[in-house]
Amino acid sequence: MARVSQEHLDARRRQILDGAARCFARNGFHATSMQDVFTEVGLSAGAVYRYFNGKEALIAAISQEAFSGIRAAFEEASRATPPPTPDVLLGRVLRKFLEERIPGADRQAFARLIVQVWAETLRDEWLAARLSEGYEGMRAAWGELVTAYRKNGILHADVPADHIARTLIAVAQGFIAQQALFGDAAVEILEDGLRGLMSMEAQSAS
Amino acid sequence: MARVSQEHLDARRRQILDGAARCFARNGFHATSMQDVFTEVGLSAGAVYRYFNGKEALIAAISQEAFSGIRAAFEEASRATPPPTPDVLLGRVLRKFLEERIPGADRQAFARLIVQVWAETLRDEWLAARLSEGYEGMRAAWGELVTAYRKNGILHADVPADHIARTLIAVAQGFIAQQALFGDAAVEILEDGLRGLMSMEAQSAS
Repeated sequence: MARVSQEHLDARRRQILDGAARCFARNGFHATSMQDVFTEVGLSAGAVYRYFNGKEALIAAISQEAFSGIRAAFEEASRATPPPTPDVLLGRVLRKFLEERIPGADRQAFARLIVQVWAETLRDEWLAARLSEGYEGMRAAWGELVTAYRKNGILHADVPADHIARTLIAVAQGFIAQQALFGDAAVEILEDGLRGLMSMEAQSAS
Repeated sequence: MARVSQEHLDARRRQILDGAARCFARNGFHATSMQDVFTEVGLSAGAVYRYFNGKEALIAAISQEAFSGIRAAFEEASRATPPPTPDVLLGRVLRKFLEERIPGADRQAFARLIVQVWAETLRDEWLAARLSEGYEGMRAAWGELVTAYRKNGILHADVPADHIARTLIAVAQGFIAQQALFGDAAVEILEDGLRGLMSMEAQSAS
């Protein structure tokens, strides 16, 4: 009995988070009211408040889930020796992550939500701290991978691993921004683009 | 006389735009009132409204200026044969662009303002249309450069030029996001990172 009850609680929580995410992706955090969330999920105020005590708590839970989802997708995709090159790895992570994240919303919704989170962190210290933690974690993980690329002889330039790590994170962030701002962006674009860059000669080297 | 008067009008307009940009970068578009702008620029409501009829007009003018500034910096930096490689070119554009854009604000302010614009375009069709125009222009310009890279023998992979163009725009966007979200990001990071990527071998090629 207890187990069924927990499943029910989890499913309700999921339903509320998905509905709130659709609202936020559509109208942004500021223009979304708790009433909008009740309507979207089809539950009463009382039912929703049993799980989340307000909009801030919903934003926090959704952001936290997004950060840990990105991290998990990255860690799964990077488990291989030698590690997959950036084109393959970023392609896998973004494919897994940008597809079907918010039930009932279009493919752009998740990217729009991320851009909303970015803007919100400029004003919200708690959220900014969570985003920084996530970023530092990704930076460290990419840094290790870049070191492995070098050890495996597939990276030649003598530049700090952290700078390559931050550039690869920038590619992912920029791709999310494009998906949010300009419409559905196929992951092949990024894979091709990185392969293209990797095939270029630096001016000093040619 | 007429010339002095026009200079005065231009200087006033500049003063208002810079003050409004500082407010928006600090608190976002939604939390900034016209009263905040009057206080920041030290002018009366009447003086400000002579130039801009409200917050929307300020946001529009600031965004438009940012888009055309990025475009101009790019066009200036790309004038050379063979064209500068992406590490050199993006470094020049971002160095010119992220430094000292908003008088009286810190180096992060401009990047924060851009992230605000992104979030705002999700709700503002006029702004979204301007951003799309700017993006299409950058895409076409980068596309031509990539074609020139190939013609000059410094790009080897057989991938669509547009996909490399979009990936390079993503790098710039992501770098702006990092500067906004995680603090001052030195342009060397991006230059190193791109040089590092360009020195990598794709898995299929090794």
